[in-house]
Amino acid sequence: AARAKELQQQQDPPTYRCLVLTGHGGYDKVKLQVKKGLPALAKGDVLVRVKACGLNFADLMARQGLYDRLPPPPVTPGMECSGVLEALGEGVQERRVGDKVLVLHRCGLWQELVAVPANHTFLMPEGMSFEEAAAIPVNYISAYMMLFDFGNLRPHQSVLVHMAAGGVGIAAAQLCKTVEDVTVFGTASASKHEVISQGGVTHAIDYRSRDYVEEVRKLSPKGVDIVLDPLGGSDTQKAFNLLKPMGRVITYGAANLLTGPKKNLLAMAKMWYNQFSISALSLMQSTKGVCGFHLGYLDVESELVSSAMSKLLELYGQGKIEPRVDSTYHFEQVGDAMRRMQERRNIGKVILLPEPKKEEEAKKEEPKSEKTEETKKEEN
Amino acid sequence: AARAKELQQQQDPPTYRCLVLTGHGGYDKVKLQVKKGLPALAKGDVLVRVKACGLNFADLMARQGLYDRLPPPPVTPGMECSGVLEALGEGVQERRVGDKVLVLHRCGLWQELVAVPANHTFLMPEGMSFEEAAAIPVNYISAYMMLFDFGNLRPHQSVLVHMAAGGVGIAAAQLCKTVEDVTVFGTASASKHEVISQGGVTHAIDYRSRDYVEEVRKLSPKGVDIVLDPLGGSDTQKAFNLLKPMGRVITYGAANLLTGPKKNLLAMAKMWYNQFSISALSLMQSTKGVCGFHLGYLDVESELVSSAMSKLLELYGQGKIEPRVDSTYHFEQVGDAMRRMQERRNIGKVILLPEPKKEEEAKKEEPKSEKTEETKKEEN
Repeated sequence: AARAKELQQQQDPPTYRCLVLTGHGGYDKVKLQVKKGLPALAKGDVLVRVKACGLNFADLMARQGLYDRLPPPPVTPGMECSGVLEALGEGVQERRVGDKVLVLHRCGLWQELVAVPANHTFLMPEGMSFEEAAAIPVNYISAYMMLFDFGNLRPHQSVLVHMAAGGVGIAAAQLCKTVEDVTVFGTASASKHEVISQGGVTHAIDYRSRDYVEEVRKLSPKGVDIVLDPLGGSDTQKAFNLLKPMGRVITYGAANLLTGPKKNLLAMAKMWYNQFSISALSLMQSTKGVCGFHLGYLDVESELVSSAMSKLLELYGQGKIEPRVDSTYHFEQVGDAMRRMQERRNIGKVILLPEPKKEEEAKKEEPKSEKTEETKKEEN
Repeated sequence: AARAKELQQQQDPPTYRCLVLTGHGGYDKVKLQVKKGLPALAKGDVLVRVKACGLNFADLMARQGLYDRLPPPPVTPGMECSGVLEALGEGVQERRVGDKVLVLHRCGLWQELVAVPANHTFLMPEGMSFEEAAAIPVNYISAYMMLFDFGNLRPHQSVLVHMAAGGVGIAAAQLCKTVEDVTVFGTASASKHEVISQGGVTHAIDYRSRDYVEEVRKLSPKGVDIVLDPLGGSDTQKAFNLLKPMGRVITYGAANLLTGPKKNLLAMAKMWYNQFSISALSLMQSTKGVCGFHLGYLDVESELVSSAMSKLLELYGQGKIEPRVDSTYHFEQVGDAMRRMQERRNIGKVILLPEPKKEEEAKKEEPKSEKTEETKKEEN
């Protein structure tokens, strides 16, 4: 069978599978398509055969039309992947065909084959799996830059990490553990507490059954030094109030907007109404700081990003960080993957695999799957 | 004469000179008074015979009624001084009578004798003069915490320092020099450029004859990593715009309010109208940070302050920081001292001396002085 496939590939023009956002809306807006030919290689580009891709909150936002860094549909999403170099564009010196790489790019990586600038790729260290590699770029670079650049985290400090079982949350807790005696407060639903506690969270807080502000105050009456805020809206104000003097909140998302699969106008209105805004005078009188972070706006800052990545790969080599893969889905299951993340059922990273789902596997899994009519339609 | 004085002291009840803010307004509102008795020593306090005091922008603001951390008049201003310990309160273990100390306290230090908590005093290192010592606490701790705590200044970064010839400005430039290859843009009027360039400013900018934003952009088109903003109003927005991604502005004053000796309602309205305010979304989309700093609000955070002070005294010992005293004034000349700072004629720190001006000195200096009718009245 393998030989037959090979022969066929030699005769037919090459094709590659990709996911395409066809319009803004629910899970069905991301469709699997097959493109002919090969992605064009510009000067300085490399061609990557993609083995695994990361799913991020920004992808969920983009599907709903809430993320302005993605070009309008039809467009291929995807900001991170791992894979193997298949060809080098003109002028590429520091890569070889066959190199295994992690890739961070503005968009377009949910494809079997992608062309990206060589300086957006990073060599995978020995022993790292493709799934792990795809789980690193967005979450770990974000957590790293927020904690160590903006946050200036130092020994004996305390950090509040929201969505501590999510991709950035898991990364943040692991990175906090690399600094002496850092206390991590992590919010997550109760069923995830055991895992996040093993991952570095000192005090796990069930935000569904308790007021997290009260819980933090009980344990640390003076507040915390750093809050990582992926929620937005009124939670940013709560974060600010929880800071000690000289503390910093780093706001990096608007997860409060994502209440369901489609754009929620009420949630948007509420978010807008509650949006945190602060004056220079209030900042001075509280002696605190507020930073905004979004990796999507740093795509021109390749030096900053590369420097964070080299430090992260060093930490990986020392066994100090360990990406946690929650689940893997083939491209045809992207709707399920998005739903899992949207409904906050994941602990760690949700990974997409470009390679087709094998038929036996598909049959075997059918009873277990939680597909709705909507996604079944997509797959047919 | 000395012996006669001694004898007199033994007979009369003790008295001490102090400066008192008698109401909000111009330079004449700070009056020299003589108090009888001794300041009361609470548990944990020490009694300091003050040798030199620092004058700060906050003192100018307070006189105009623009600084809410000073109790209402009549009150003695003064947040920093140096002196010698004359008595120890109950429970003080780590100080001895005769110790030379630097003092940082919320207010009340412009007195010949003060009682302050022992943990608000720091031992003066060998070789430091009282004038130097009085020039350190407010300016150097502020510059240190802004650059290294909020700013997280690292090698190869760039910093814009406004009022680079002022107390904080001089301190900031010296501290920037302790980090490898930091570029310092410093604004000051042209006559001060030579001094600030020797003090660590890489590019001196005359803000009176040129647009500082354009000048910085010419030299560094991508902007800067950190702005220290003592001005407030529309300059905070300019600072924010000048930041690179991941950059931070640290706003710590409202010098734009101080247009003359008395409260300027038009300047206040303008400041209020132009006050910088920012939303979480804008911060995220620019991937920048804004911090507010005011040492006056950190008076309960004695650990943070002590830790910064020990590092500063270490740097002093290594010859890496060197307080620059602009001028010294006796208590009876406080109006002149305030005017010098208000009119931005100082390069470095303006110091107040509690000891009375000698008559010969007073006569000799008379022709040189720039006193107005207002302050002359005060002295009579």
